Amino acid sequence: MNTIGTTFRFTSFGESHGHAIGGVLDGVPAGIRIDLEMIREALARRAGRIGSVEDSSIGTSPRARRESDEVEWLSGVLDGVTLGTPIAFIIRNTDARPEDYLWLQDSYRPGHADWVYQQKYGIRDYRGGGRASARETVSRVVAGEIARKLLLEHRIEVHATLTQIGEEEDPTRFEPLLKEVQQAGDSIGGIVSCTITGLGVGVGEPIFDKLSARLAAAMLSINGCKGFDYDLGFESLHYRGSAYIERKESISGGISTGEPIRFRAVFKPAATIAQRYKGRHDVCIAIRAVPVVEAMTNLVLIDMLYESAQ
Amino acid sequence: MNTIGTTFRFTSFGESHGHAIGGVLDGVPAGIRIDLEMIREALARRAGRIGSVEDSSIGTSPRARRESDEVEWLSGVLDGVTLGTPIAFIIRNTDARPEDYLWLQDSYRPGHADWVYQQKYGIRDYRGGGRASARETVSRVVAGEIARKLLLEHRIEVHATLTQIGEEEDPTRFEPLLKEVQQAGDSIGGIVSCTITGLGVGVGEPIFDKLSARLAAAMLSINGCKGFDYDLGFESLHYRGSAYIERKESISGGISTGEPIRFRAVFKPAATIAQRYKGRHDVCIAIRAVPVVEAMTNLVLIDMLYESAQ
Amino acid sequence: MNTIGTTFRFTSFGESHGHAIGGVLDGVPAGIRIDLEMIREALARRAGRIGSVEDSSIGTSPRARRESDEVEWLSGVLDGVTLGTPIAFIIRNTDARPEDYLWLQDSYRPGHADWVYQQKYGIRDYRGGGRASARETVSRVVAGEIARKLLLEHRIEVHATLTQIGEEEDPTRFEPLLKEVQQAGDSIGGIVSCTITGLGVGVGEPIFDKLSARLAAAMLSINGCKGFDYDLGFESLHYRGSAYIERKESISGGISTGEPIRFRAVFKPAATIAQRYKGRHDVCIAIRAVPVVEAMTNLVLIDMLYESAQ
Amino acid sequence: MNTIGTTFRFTSFGESHGHAIGGVLDGVPAGIRIDLEMIREALARRAGRIGSVEDSSIGTSPRARRESDEVEWLSGVLDGVTLGTPIAFIIRNTDARPEDYLWLQDSYRPGHADWVYQQKYGIRDYRGGGRASARETVSRVVAGEIARKLLLEHRIEVHATLTQIGEEEDPTRFEPLLKEVQQAGDSIGGIVSCTITGLGVGVGEPIFDKLSARLAAAMLSINGCKGFDYDLGFESLHYRGSAYIERKESISGGISTGEPIRFRAVFKPAATIAQRYKGRHDVCIAIRAVPVVEAMTNLVLIDMLYESAQ
Repeated sequence: MNTIGTTFRFTSFGESHGHAIGGVLDGVPAGIRIDLEMIREALARRAGRIGSVEDSSIGTSPRARRESDEVEWLSGVLDGVTLGTPIAFIIRNTDARPEDYLWLQDSYRPGHADWVYQQKYGIRDYRGGGRASARETVSRVVAGEIARKLLLEHRIEVHATLTQIGEEEDPTRFEPLLKEVQQAGDSIGGIVSCTITGLGVGVGEPIFDKLSARLAAAMLSINGCKGFDYDLGFESLHYRGSAYIERKESISGGISTGEPIRFRAVFKPAATIAQRYKGRHDVCIAIRAVPVVEAMTNLVLIDMLYESAQ
Repeated sequence: MNTIGTTFRFTSFGESHGHAIGGVLDGVPAGIRIDLEMIREALARRAGRIGSVEDSSIGTSPRARRESDEVEWLSGVLDGVTLGTPIAFIIRNTDARPEDYLWLQDSYRPGHADWVYQQKYGIRDYRGGGRASARETVSRVVAGEIARKLLLEHRIEVHATLTQIGEEEDPTRFEPLLKEVQQAGDSIGGIVSCTITGLGVGVGEPIFDKLSARLAAAMLSINGCKGFDYDLGFESLHYRGSAYIERKESISGGISTGEPIRFRAVFKPAATIAQRYKGRHDVCIAIRAVPVVEAMTNLVLIDMLYESAQ
Repeated sequence: MNTIGTTFRFTSFGESHGHAIGGVLDGVPAGIRIDLEMIREALARRAGRIGSVEDSSIGTSPRARRESDEVEWLSGVLDGVTLGTPIAFIIRNTDARPEDYLWLQDSYRPGHADWVYQQKYGIRDYRGGGRASARETVSRVVAGEIARKLLLEHRIEVHATLTQIGEEEDPTRFEPLLKEVQQAGDSIGGIVSCTITGLGVGVGEPIFDKLSARLAAAMLSINGCKGFDYDLGFESLHYRGSAYIERKESISGGISTGEPIRFRAVFKPAATIAQRYKGRHDVCIAIRAVPVVEAMTNLVLIDMLYESAQ
Repeated sequence: MNTIGTTFRFTSFGESHGHAIGGVLDGVPAGIRIDLEMIREALARRAGRIGSVEDSSIGTSPRARRESDEVEWLSGVLDGVTLGTPIAFIIRNTDARPEDYLWLQDSYRPGHADWVYQQKYGIRDYRGGGRASARETVSRVVAGEIARKLLLEHRIEVHATLTQIGEEEDPTRFEPLLKEVQQAGDSIGGIVSCTITGLGVGVGEPIFDKLSARLAAAMLSINGCKGFDYDLGFESLHYRGSAYIERKESISGGISTGEPIRFRAVFKPAATIAQRYKGRHDVCIAIRAVPVVEAMTNLVLIDMLYESAQ
């Protein structure tokens, strides 16, 4: 439910305007040094404070909460090194402004999960999206960086980047486009592309736990993600088999072939737009999804790597 | 690994040219009458013997094995009614022609999983794809039809159809296109679109087990599937947020909203093409994937429905 | 539900008087030669056809079904060697005599699970205990022998034996006691003791998945088992700490210490006694439980060994 | 690994002398009011501050840490009512005295898990038992009380009590015996008996997830527990079947019959005895195990109740 993974398990908890968000990582080997700087840097990217597009004032900053995103390590780590026991961490919600959301106590924002939560649970945390808030991804990023550390020891690297905004595929034209959308008080969708290198052959399980299936689920678990494809994906419709088989496949029968894996995740235009709602708005949620895509990919890979190693 | 589902669990087993393929369904309520006719009909569709495009001689028949696909019920059913105990069933591989594949003992077919299996396991069933064969989906279809029966009691209906072949989106033009590709000894990709109606609000879990994430994983678990999207999916790139929010979303925050759900799964052109290999070939594997898409959707829905009902 | 294990998973299916019972083993490594003779011998012990006490006509034979218990391998094995894919097997119920049980259609046997099944499921297989029958353990024994084969490669050995019948702890006095109980048309309880050697240090997980916890659950999953203890167990009440700590512990904090592990499982007197019911009766169900205790122990050990090896 | 439960899942984390211990509860329905007083009272019982035997100065108090055991609720609760989202809580380790344990950095206490942890993980938290410390059970008690609240809505009640110390079964004679053992600087084992009422018929799953199997595993997951039995358990050896079947069984075929369930858990004499080690020592760990037995029982019952309700 709020846990992902089989051998390397991550449990996420926390509402965006509660006391804290956080997570528990179970299955991390003992003796690994946690790289706090790596985690801090990834959180800064997620918060829209640094990064290629993100560090401009365009795209995200109006919405960025002024959270310091300070990670508090509660267990599983002694003198900066993992103990093999569950690693629990929290991040306090210091910049929570629940009063900004009091008007939501009796209304729902279209395109948000408020209403379905109310229907499903008969109750909801009306304060800023609660559990459905993008803030929950902070925990994913922390967990994902620990997974990345483990993957790097196997020389497996994951790198995601924004490759399309709306219909625009040329990154040099992203900034003017974002500016235009922002000035219109509107929002726009985008594609995050992710590359995995160094994985080697044999990772993934043949039937239901195909590597591709796990990656797809991980991407679709990110708020706003509406689709996933890998290798040529939807583009393969433009090829006949005779031409297609000239391309090397990165995953075959659900199992990695050793070729670099490239997949895409598409993000819809944000529902909360400045034309209608005051407050903090992302012009393009795909921008801040980049480190989350990496985090989820790292979590899937380390879990499947450990499974395959059994 | 070979099991899917949490509360309604399906375990699949069997190699394409072994003694039998089959499955075990755990979590089926007691007192449900199994609809053998429904199952038979779905298997016939999967085998390419009936259906809109499928019943023509184009697209699939050259490859279709002459299996009767007779289901043998081993347990969990008494006088045609479920007992609440695990339902085990098998389908014998009567038309297995392992001798057709002996030449594969020492070679690998490009675009097939033969090679990765050999790398991963150090051994493989060289007979016709073994576990990676599309034949494994027979078990999925049987299980999926039992799930469908349970869904129908909740008035939930799942219907998949072929909506695109290559770049062609007009179904009336499918047959000539398939004929052309077949005559060229080539293959072509396609899109299967699936619609879910009657699901109601509240099915799906908020974080990692979003309904969309589970559907994506289920689709990507089908051989040849290279991508998934839902609602506007990749098409949402053509919309600004101000226009996009006019569309009703079918899944919000991972939870069904009560709107009909529509998703797409894209299938690559088959790797085994007549130009290169003798034997049975599918011109467009998306055609026979249609009932498999339905089966996997049924399995996901009943599992999540039961989970949500807790 | 009907599956046990995390990395080495065994799913059991089948009613005692249905078409077949069987199982699916997922997680068996590729390249292992199945030892059919070992399996046949274990099944014979379970059926009460051979063994120290079992091969006498006392204790079990009046009840012993004349099943050949022939295992049919459906998948996962090629030329006697595992493929790394799920191993499915069935045993036909050739000696089923459902007509013997027709009178049970409208009545319940005290001390049997008939009544609770009816209450829980609203339906039951009235034929000879259905799923609750001891016959289900045939599948466990087959699976357990495959696990044993894997354990032997790690020089881990499991051996169970009957150490107490009623209040009698001297094995040389078992046979007269059993004869006396049988002649009285009665039944009697017993203790099966099991020893694990060669396990090494470090198997087991610290908190909920302690090795002792998993073994306890496995024993209590056997029909008629009413208790479990290990090391000194209930006998430790006779010791003060100062004396107790002189004994070496086999499991500490849930993790194996490398010392031989010894545990006990107690079985109640059978509820079906000749005084009241005609048909086949076990005088002491603990006798035929011996190979089942071994099977369940093997299954737990291989699963936890693989988990610990991650 | 550090998670127990399927539909109602509890994840435990924390070392005894780290920053905090705590847990995450997933699957708690929305709209339940948390009873803080109930939790506080249970924690006081676990800490040995109140209770029949526990509130005397005998048995536990020399060891009792002066923790306030203040629970900090991090998520899943709004205005004292559950949200249906994961409930995370922590308890700070305010009375941790790691310096008391520095001598352990290079040595192991016999009868403790220190050594196996070092072997298994190659590293350990030498500070007071780390993860293997009895302090971890604080989190279990908090989670168990939330489960108890849910059970009470179904009128299911769980009550555990100390019924035997060493060989003494008469509670009026417990206090002098404990005093004697304490004065000798020694320790003694004991039995905790637990009664479940109001459960109704039908809870439990037939094969591997028998209610008895789950209870056994839960008990054996408690530090120092060496055995479990239910109904007549090991006492059933004193009965012939003809007499035994007069007794009503509480669990049949793994499923509750509606009769009150009574089981026992035996705890060994503590390994840390005053004769050898300075510091805080429990004369009889069974005393403080009483609320932990209740907690684990509550957790198992609510999980299986929800599973059965599917």
